[in-house]
Amino acid sequence: MADPATISPATLLKDELDIVIPTIRNLDFLEMWRPFFQPYHLIIVQDGDPSKAIKVPEGFDYELYNRNDINRILGPKASCISFKDSACRCFGYMVSKKKYIYTIDDDCFVAKDPSGKDINALEQHIKNLLSPSTPFFFNTLYDPYRAGADFVRGYPFSLREGVPTAVSHGLWLNIPDYDAPTQLVKPLERNTRYVDAVMTIPKGTLFPMCGMNLAFDRELIGPAMYFGLMGDGQPIGRYDDMWAGWCTKVICDHLGWGVKTGLPYIWHSKASNPFVNLRKEYKGIYWQEELIPFFQSVTFPKDCTSVQKCYIEIAKQVKAKLGKVDDYFNKLADAMVTWIEAWDELNPSGASKSSDLPNGASK
Amino acid sequence: MADPATISPATLLKDELDIVIPTIRNLDFLEMWRPFFQPYHLIIVQDGDPSKAIKVPEGFDYELYNRNDINRILGPKASCISFKDSACRCFGYMVSKKKYIYTIDDDCFVAKDPSGKDINALEQHIKNLLSPSTPFFFNTLYDPYRAGADFVRGYPFSLREGVPTAVSHGLWLNIPDYDAPTQLVKPLERNTRYVDAVMTIPKGTLFPMCGMNLAFDRELIGPAMYFGLMGDGQPIGRYDDMWAGWCTKVICDHLGWGVKTGLPYIWHSKASNPFVNLRKEYKGIYWQEELIPFFQSVTFPKDCTSVQKCYIEIAKQVKAKLGKVDDYFNKLADAMVTWIEAWDELNPSGASKSSDLPNGASK
Repeated sequence: MADPATISPATLLKDELDIVIPTIRNLDFLEMWRPFFQPYHLIIVQDGDPSKAIKVPEGFDYELYNRNDINRILGPKASCISFKDSACRCFGYMVSKKKYIYTIDDDCFVAKDPSGKDINALEQHIKNLLSPSTPFFFNTLYDPYRAGADFVRGYPFSLREGVPTAVSHGLWLNIPDYDAPTQLVKPLERNTRYVDAVMTIPKGTLFPMCGMNLAFDRELIGPAMYFGLMGDGQPIGRYDDMWAGWCTKVICDHLGWGVKTGLPYIWHSKASNPFVNLRKEYKGIYWQEELIPFFQSVTFPKDCTSVQKCYIEIAKQVKAKLGKVDDYFNKLADAMVTWIEAWDELNPSGASKSSDLPNGASK
Repeated sequence: MADPATISPATLLKDELDIVIPTIRNLDFLEMWRPFFQPYHLIIVQDGDPSKAIKVPEGFDYELYNRNDINRILGPKASCISFKDSACRCFGYMVSKKKYIYTIDDDCFVAKDPSGKDINALEQHIKNLLSPSTPFFFNTLYDPYRAGADFVRGYPFSLREGVPTAVSHGLWLNIPDYDAPTQLVKPLERNTRYVDAVMTIPKGTLFPMCGMNLAFDRELIGPAMYFGLMGDGQPIGRYDDMWAGWCTKVICDHLGWGVKTGLPYIWHSKASNPFVNLRKEYKGIYWQEELIPFFQSVTFPKDCTSVQKCYIEIAKQVKAKLGKVDDYFNKLADAMVTWIEAWDELNPSGASKSSDLPNGASK
């Protein structure tokens, strides 16, 4: 274990963070995470057949929701939660009562750093979330708040306080997060490069947010972390986290919050089937060419001062501009509104939480 | 030495790249670089007293210019080249006839990678320049063109060809490139973190470009690499490379070219005097708070289809918007115009080289 100074942030937040895990199988993978996850509360979202029993290793504190629970809790609004797709995980964000969320896939294991030491991914995410972001200017030595680093010559002093961090996007050693075409072309490629950096993704720049190893400040950005309509009855899959990432990034840019990517790494153990993935993805691959310009051009009216208001505004623009790409986007826009209604119902105190727009933070 | 596949880009470009070194002393530092630099031509720009003889280690192929040479070659236009400041290096860019430039400070030595192997900085810069950049969307696994990496899921396929790379900005181990206030506060801080990554700085994002370890495509972006008026007779210093970086970045963004940062590292051997630096910097630190919003708001009219035209446009805007901050910026704007006139005089064939504006490349 690391020295107490290093470990303290993780244990400090044990009552303020939930770990959300979507799954269809027994959670044996938790054994490997026991030293790091056991102090925390888990929210397990069981996908698929609700009659199947999911075994959770002993000693973990958890609550588990299956499809019947989701239907019971949300009633007709349960339609916004995907079925037979890991996008269902966002239900866990909604029922959590904590300030922070860490979400991880059940095929992700503890990775080792170059010195051979087990990486405490959760601890690094917490460090990322608790230190500011710097979206307005690029620091060439990466995270300026990290021990041994700082802002370099030429970095404006007025920007050195940074802004609150809303999202910490972690990476993967071993199986990289490739799309089906790339998986097919490079079936043997493995990510073996440990890049020892955390950085803020600049304002105005979109990125592909992967949900495999992701933490966020639920109080700040939770209502934007909707993983869309995927899986059963839907024309696409594997764009759930991407959708959440694009919505989240444009809202963070507007409200003046930061999104970080880089450390920590987890060990991604097995590649999903590229043929199945291709079937799920092919419409997304095509639609995405419209989605990126769409998100690059999203702007918010002045009265969009909360995540909820921003999110409803995006839903409106999705319907107006993407509805003609495919009727799916009309359904998605409606589900986005339903999601916000359900969120506010389950989180009445946090409904329409406002941001104090800092100077220069708005687009 | 690396295997031939790895080394070939460097030796291939030996007739297409000049190494530009500004100096006031004997160039003993070249001994350490001999295995890497000896095949290349050096352009040495001697700063300070022109009667002093600069000793260059035997076996290097070089041309050397002192202040008398600069005055003779440029005549009255020599006023745009700084004196008693390493900003004079940009004269070397102007007299080069090569496609690529690498510039390095004479207190920079060969660094070692984590395996203990000497880093061939020039070879890495050439790789960076010869592979495309990806300024329109962020790739979370960093440089997608590097062996063992690719574009991740969610990266639009239409953007995977990338765009030409104009600039490769390398980093420094040991003494980090801090401003005087940070040097004073953290005199003992050393950069020991080797981050094994190269990345494109996204379109629309400014960064602090350091001239210590820098390569660029002179044919593409050379005329924008003016290091301004610094040193003797000028109110500031240590903003020469920053100024070049901001001008270069907004022009690259407009013309659809990429700027990379990250690898390679050099070993920066000694910190400059923070008290002297503070005297040089203090006005810059203050003015910079106006400069960044200025560069963030620079836009170019449609007819700005060459670097020269863009650069003249920036000079015009500097005069219009920054002249009121300090009269220095009026002088600087005039010097920027003189620089372009001198550039075109020495480089008649490349004068006003046009860019084919790619789709979506313009702001």
